[in-house]
Amino acid sequence: MTDGRVTAGVVGGSGFTGGELLRLLAGHPEFEVVQATSRSYERKTVGHVHPNLRSLDLRFTSPDDLESVDVLFTATPHGVSMERIDEFRDAAETVVDLSADFRLPEAAAYDEWYDGHVAPEYLDEAEYALPELNRENLPGADLIAAGGCNATATILALKPLADSGVVTASDRAVVDVKVGSSEGGAGGGAASSHAERSGVVRPYAPTEHRHQAEIDAYLGLSTAFTVHAVDMVRGASATCHTFPADAVTKGDLWGAYRDAYEDEPFVDLVAGGGDVYRYPEPKAVAGTNRAEVGFALDTDNARVVAFGAIDNVMKGSAGQAVHAANLAVGFEETAGLDQRGLHPVGTP
Amino acid sequence: MTDGRVTAGVVGGSGFTGGELLRLLAGHPEFEVVQATSRSYERKTVGHVHPNLRSLDLRFTSPDDLESVDVLFTATPHGVSMERIDEFRDAAETVVDLSADFRLPEAAAYDEWYDGHVAPEYLDEAEYALPELNRENLPGADLIAAGGCNATATILALKPLADSGVVTASDRAVVDVKVGSSEGGAGGGAASSHAERSGVVRPYAPTEHRHQAEIDAYLGLSTAFTVHAVDMVRGASATCHTFPADAVTKGDLWGAYRDAYEDEPFVDLVAGGGDVYRYPEPKAVAGTNRAEVGFALDTDNARVVAFGAIDNVMKGSAGQAVHAANLAVGFEETAGLDQRGLHPVGTP
Amino acid sequence: MTDGRVTAGVVGGSGFTGGELLRLLAGHPEFEVVQATSRSYERKTVGHVHPNLRSLDLRFTSPDDLESVDVLFTATPHGVSMERIDEFRDAAETVVDLSADFRLPEAAAYDEWYDGHVAPEYLDEAEYALPELNRENLPGADLIAAGGCNATATILALKPLADSGVVTASDRAVVDVKVGSSEGGAGGGAASSHAERSGVVRPYAPTEHRHQAEIDAYLGLSTAFTVHAVDMVRGASATCHTFPADAVTKGDLWGAYRDAYEDEPFVDLVAGGGDVYRYPEPKAVAGTNRAEVGFALDTDNARVVAFGAIDNVMKGSAGQAVHAANLAVGFEETAGLDQRGLHPVGTP
Amino acid sequence: MTDGRVTAGVVGGSGFTGGELLRLLAGHPEFEVVQATSRSYERKTVGHVHPNLRSLDLRFTSPDDLESVDVLFTATPHGVSMERIDEFRDAAETVVDLSADFRLPEAAAYDEWYDGHVAPEYLDEAEYALPELNRENLPGADLIAAGGCNATATILALKPLADSGVVTASDRAVVDVKVGSSEGGAGGGAASSHAERSGVVRPYAPTEHRHQAEIDAYLGLSTAFTVHAVDMVRGASATCHTFPADAVTKGDLWGAYRDAYEDEPFVDLVAGGGDVYRYPEPKAVAGTNRAEVGFALDTDNARVVAFGAIDNVMKGSAGQAVHAANLAVGFEETAGLDQRGLHPVGTP
Repeated sequence: MTDGRVTAGVVGGSGFTGGELLRLLAGHPEFEVVQATSRSYERKTVGHVHPNLRSLDLRFTSPDDLESVDVLFTATPHGVSMERIDEFRDAAETVVDLSADFRLPEAAAYDEWYDGHVAPEYLDEAEYALPELNRENLPGADLIAAGGCNATATILALKPLADSGVVTASDRAVVDVKVGSSEGGAGGGAASSHAERSGVVRPYAPTEHRHQAEIDAYLGLSTAFTVHAVDMVRGASATCHTFPADAVTKGDLWGAYRDAYEDEPFVDLVAGGGDVYRYPEPKAVAGTNRAEVGFALDTDNARVVAFGAIDNVMKGSAGQAVHAANLAVGFEETAGLDQRGLHPVGTP
Repeated sequence: MTDGRVTAGVVGGSGFTGGELLRLLAGHPEFEVVQATSRSYERKTVGHVHPNLRSLDLRFTSPDDLESVDVLFTATPHGVSMERIDEFRDAAETVVDLSADFRLPEAAAYDEWYDGHVAPEYLDEAEYALPELNRENLPGADLIAAGGCNATATILALKPLADSGVVTASDRAVVDVKVGSSEGGAGGGAASSHAERSGVVRPYAPTEHRHQAEIDAYLGLSTAFTVHAVDMVRGASATCHTFPADAVTKGDLWGAYRDAYEDEPFVDLVAGGGDVYRYPEPKAVAGTNRAEVGFALDTDNARVVAFGAIDNVMKGSAGQAVHAANLAVGFEETAGLDQRGLHPVGTP
Repeated sequence: MTDGRVTAGVVGGSGFTGGELLRLLAGHPEFEVVQATSRSYERKTVGHVHPNLRSLDLRFTSPDDLESVDVLFTATPHGVSMERIDEFRDAAETVVDLSADFRLPEAAAYDEWYDGHVAPEYLDEAEYALPELNRENLPGADLIAAGGCNATATILALKPLADSGVVTASDRAVVDVKVGSSEGGAGGGAASSHAERSGVVRPYAPTEHRHQAEIDAYLGLSTAFTVHAVDMVRGASATCHTFPADAVTKGDLWGAYRDAYEDEPFVDLVAGGGDVYRYPEPKAVAGTNRAEVGFALDTDNARVVAFGAIDNVMKGSAGQAVHAANLAVGFEETAGLDQRGLHPVGTP
Repeated sequence: MTDGRVTAGVVGGSGFTGGELLRLLAGHPEFEVVQATSRSYERKTVGHVHPNLRSLDLRFTSPDDLESVDVLFTATPHGVSMERIDEFRDAAETVVDLSADFRLPEAAAYDEWYDGHVAPEYLDEAEYALPELNRENLPGADLIAAGGCNATATILALKPLADSGVVTASDRAVVDVKVGSSEGGAGGGAASSHAERSGVVRPYAPTEHRHQAEIDAYLGLSTAFTVHAVDMVRGASATCHTFPADAVTKGDLWGAYRDAYEDEPFVDLVAGGGDVYRYPEPKAVAGTNRAEVGFALDTDNARVVAFGAIDNVMKGSAGQAVHAANLAVGFEETAGLDQRGLHPVGTP
């Protein structure tokens, strides 16, 4: 700690989620950021890359020289954290990793969905962080794997149905996710250029998206998962088509969703009220750590459509990581995460 | 006929589909437009409303004074055509209606999905027009109901699976459609204002969308249908999640899709090739009468994901109507419909 | 006051600027909102209209029954405040009007640019509020006219050139402003529908925009003003082409801009650094009360191009109003206005 | 020629303007495309890169093996054509270059605005092609330099004022251009990624844009030129603020614009009529070779605001090149260029 505040570092500070961590930590009442690393922008100010951080007096340093901090947030591409985990652990009491490297419970899953795992001995110790799912595991955790963006939107939509037994692993759920371009990261590339990416409805992962593993592992359901790119920058919206074996009423559903979320500080239920904004929409929560969750009942088809909408950079990544760190360190759960959305707003 | 050309009239010429009919007919080698009606813009040039038609020497006339034409295209809000059908029939040998008023085969379906039908005696006579489905019914037809936009995208995606028996009525298909703002028509309203509508992923018809009736009636399948508004102007994209009872291979699927479409002049198969454009996308066909159709096989989930992408104003409405009229009157099927898409293009 | 807090009311709470006032006041450390009026949505919750305010426990009331408050913010269409000003003054010690009704110093100007003025006796008393221009007039003011959005972007861009004498009234400035769709308000209408308004570069006020009067009156310059609509929701960007009579260097310009703004809490100078964000851009300040201001020197043409970028709903309206109210009442100037922008962000 | 048709080749066929040339030539009644080159995509079909060209039976070949053709279109980055000009001339009777390499009349201008010229001996011979400006020079030309996109929009807007003497070189014109992302080419890069480029109003060339040289050289005016990036893919819109020395009336202006353009096949005058589309807008001409040109008179400021709107990929590049080739070879001027715009349309 420095002057009584808890110190934090960010590895991978020039990327989109790294920049978002810096935004959140700069406004956090308890954390003090002492390091942000970037190999490409070493010695540049963070505002050079992130125009919203121009007022911060902080320069990127090399990722090779990590300072000791209380909490280290690692926002590196998948595969880096598992390579450098010992180093990260040496540098901090608590490591919060934003990549997929420690999300899945079993090394075997990494063989199936990724390119295998080089530090499987840490998988047991790592706590998956989606606080609405497993808040109780996070206090005191020293290695935390923040949940993935598309998985978070989906899990939040389906959890009330799973908890209440309305849907079980034998009722396959079809999950159709729509995401913004920030999910592709800051790197660029032809497919993500403005000219090619504008106005799309593009099935970019029609099958075999890796987040399916995370959803099925933690929710105990069986999902058929598809991801489309659409024209927004921030946002992930999961539409989950489920077919409960037993008949269900709107009242049952309201009960299930209220049971799941009535005490949750970051979840709003949105299911049919309002004039324009009647169901969850990602633009309503852009820039915030909030999730909108809701449902519609299709009696003709004995179908329940469950919706979850988040900002993938926030609740789907940096916000979730700070939320988890708050719980791990013992801060107020919502500290630094009280941003409110905008209205009107375009495609944040 | 006038000077050997076939005459056409457009009722409802100031709306989006009416304007598109005028664009198509103005460039058509066989048709001559002799009337376009608009109550709001009577006596104004069509270019006053449609900036792309400024070069046309044509003024809107009252919809109360219909001229006699060979083919009358009626692009009015749902409910108008069934009220005025006798008048329309008197004015033209062939009526091509772009509304839903004569699409469903049974009056009972109108009681369930719409507000009942006031001219059910014409339902038998009316030919549903989705030429890839029932081209053979159209030559000589005198009342044609052009297929709906979302139904067209869905039917084209699923038809090869239905025809080949890969999917049957007992295998429920989940259809998740994404549409542009032109589907809302030219009228405006708070929900469709740019400030509210930009950047959305909005579940605007999570259940009970009327096009489900059309799809199930003509395809003989059982679909669970959901429509989302996304940020584009033109375009409808159907993603259809199906679970065939029997195992199926990629080869089987290529066979089914080729059988269905290899001779179709307006359908392109797109299923995994290419770098950026690997699956059907509405922006690739914007402004054209073409449909992109494709599929992905998810062996883990025994799922076939079928895609259909169209321009809702063209293949989903005005283009389909002209295609049907070409067939009805005996013109070359593709006459006036050879528009090619653009690359790059934003959100047409 | 209620429990030691200062009470506030918002007349016109369902519009875009009214909703933004409610967002700001809800997060303000000193104000307590006791009333928000809306004729159309009387008795509905504010969250019914503004999805970002769902957590607020506040319902719209009739605008005919104003409660007594310390500060009344009036966010009504132009012309309403001048009609109801006596009533507004009776209801509150301080009235902050967000319309144009009290912005201009002379009744004659209303005859020229608007439809005349029905309460010209208040024009002397009213203080124009653009704190960077006239902060000293605001403490204790009881009728405040918050500066207009396009005028604010332009005045902030040009003020350093005017103050330093680089540009004078005899050097005509060409001002080319680009604005988002939120400037059109929440009302809708065909021209502002998503289908018509998307992707535009539309010269919507090529000449005679009313804000020119405000700019010339308060800056003492002579501007030729043009406004274009472009595809964003929030944002106003002013590009001001000036031709100083005397040669000027980059150093002179840096000096002029630093002199003007180095102590300003809400202004950032952005003039050529950075990789992607090199000059002022509205999207970098969306959702905040900040302004980006900068310049480029064109020595070939003896031209100085000055830039100002703001969020029209915030620094151009509701944020400016709260800023002025903070100064009027004696709060910390930045209270409730410390929102930070997002990166990445689309078209907020 | 092949079978009586005139043969054409495209060097640089995988870029945006190269692809647009292929689209136009594929639909051209007189040209036959016999070669399209691309080093990166050698042996791939053109549809692999350009989804709108999937039906073409044409594969990219190496740019090192040029076939002999009647007309060779070269759509390479600036600097390539001047290096390879002898080779290009050997391969074809007529070379139409779409780069800036032969646009300026003097080698000295290349020293000032570019990196010098390596084949200045061709500058005299090369004909600048902006047919509305110098149609008479093009028949029989063997080296043609198609005018630049931003220059074309500006020249078309200002030409009537220059021709009629309303504005002269001593009346400086301020030109504020707004452009879409396709101007950046197909290459990608961080600044042009969708996440960074969406929703921008970005002063990307506040001063010293190279097209200023082209405008001043061919129009004989003196312009102060600034280019902004805005959120569209195709489109360039020039707003030109001019201050005529002598008073001018609306009638004078209508006269000047009609004199300039009444016989032009690709120019529409748009100056204040209509409801929504009252002045030139790029989205109204997207995908076409048309230009919208118009003006507004600001009597208070003795200002004439002139507007020009084009599709930068078409009238600003590939369309202009085909137009010039039609004139050079002796075809009907409008052959293959009769595309009509769309309504509604988003940001094409």
